[in-house]
Amino acid sequence: MPPVHPSWRIVLVRPRNPLNIGAAARAMANFGFDDLVVVEPYEPVWKESRAAVGANQVMARARAAASLAEAIQDRTLVVGTTTGRRRNLGRELIALEYFRAWVKRHRPRTRPDHVGARAALLFGSEKTGLSNEALSYCHALVRIPTSERSPSMNLGQAVAVCCYELDRSRRSSPRNAVWPLRRSDPASLESLDHLLERVVRILDSCSYFTPKTREARLLKLRRLLLNLDLSHYDARVMGGAVAQIEWKLGSSKIPS
Amino acid sequence: MPPVHPSWRIVLVRPRNPLNIGAAARAMANFGFDDLVVVEPYEPVWKESRAAVGANQVMARARAAASLAEAIQDRTLVVGTTTGRRRNLGRELIALEYFRAWVKRHRPRTRPDHVGARAALLFGSEKTGLSNEALSYCHALVRIPTSERSPSMNLGQAVAVCCYELDRSRRSSPRNAVWPLRRSDPASLESLDHLLERVVRILDSCSYFTPKTREARLLKLRRLLLNLDLSHYDARVMGGAVAQIEWKLGSSKIPS
Repeated sequence: MPPVHPSWRIVLVRPRNPLNIGAAARAMANFGFDDLVVVEPYEPVWKESRAAVGANQVMARARAAASLAEAIQDRTLVVGTTTGRRRNLGRELIALEYFRAWVKRHRPRTRPDHVGARAALLFGSEKTGLSNEALSYCHALVRIPTSERSPSMNLGQAVAVCCYELDRSRRSSPRNAVWPLRRSDPASLESLDHLLERVVRILDSCSYFTPKTREARLLKLRRLLLNLDLSHYDARVMGGAVAQIEWKLGSSKIPS
Repeated sequence: MPPVHPSWRIVLVRPRNPLNIGAAARAMANFGFDDLVVVEPYEPVWKESRAAVGANQVMARARAAASLAEAIQDRTLVVGTTTGRRRNLGRELIALEYFRAWVKRHRPRTRPDHVGARAALLFGSEKTGLSNEALSYCHALVRIPTSERSPSMNLGQAVAVCCYELDRSRRSSPRNAVWPLRRSDPASLESLDHLLERVVRILDSCSYFTPKTREARLLKLRRLLLNLDLSHYDARVMGGAVAQIEWKLGSSKIPS
């Protein structure tokens, strides 16, 4: 039997507690998800999780990634989770229960049930949540609507609630809704990152960044690029144009 | 700040793992629930849960009950949870996401936001779920819609998903919907149990039960009584009538 949600990947970023990794895998299996990637797991934690009694098929198939970028490079929609109300870096903060509706309305090309779409849902570490750098990879942020008095959730429970909700809202929306236009496939994170790299090289050669502003501006640029909701074709066209500029500016690279 | 859901009690029936009790308490706090009762906890487990680092206010206020009947005697609506598809004892099995709507339509008197309504949501032990006896106390069963391949949920995660869903559906329904008629308060489990006891004494004196059928018939009677959705007033009227029968049959009790 194939998993119910082949287009969703769950990504745990630097989790510290092996019980939470196993709990996340179990909740995923409960609601039909089977693609788990763990970013930079602490090695003993990783080994312990995989060896745990009752580790299920999801855990057996789970992969470790050396970086967040590696974990999501083939994704077309990246969504961060938070239980807080701040630190959204100017990104839309969507209550979990409205998330499916939001994707449909605002990101039709990257909705996870669109042909060729591949989404990732990110969970930060137990203590610190998602870092600003991790957040900069996200197209959107989903807020689990916890109480103000007690906002911080257990990681395994947060994964359970999100998987439940994604599964629920998929089932309650019309299964095979027809889209009037067959749009082009969405651009992958990898191709957008390549594009961004080129743009950054160009801006560097134009002294756009100062050492002080560089990091913040990079994050902003990435967000801007993600918000464009580019198709694969769009990204290639832009890539060509940017390569041309880079060549003109005398960088060593030859336009591809 | 008062809890958001004062009318709901979460009842864990004979949980074995102290981590799960603490996890349940944490998830409850996350979604605004604060009334936790644990039935027949294994004593060391109970002590360990209460002493655990990070035990929150819900855990501090949690109570142990010697029996399920004690845990729910003041409730007006009792709902069991299951992830399976069988063993529903002929009771309606409602998918979690439709539960609020079901309560509104079918149990208006006992809906948890009705004045005077007090509901309990029961969770069975990690291994066996709810026993048939526990199920016989339930007005309805809620099914957490897990995958067929991997139906069994972690207890703490099941509590998290249910609290999330109850909170979600409450928020998405009109807050202060006006009810056209002020109905009488619902009957408490305690008064229904008194009524049932009287009825059973009567039936015993009529040789209704055989040793073989007694238990199954008791469960059926309890279910029948719960399904009547009696008001407090109804229950008193019936109690009076039943007492009269009992007196007539020559039992030692005098009608109250």
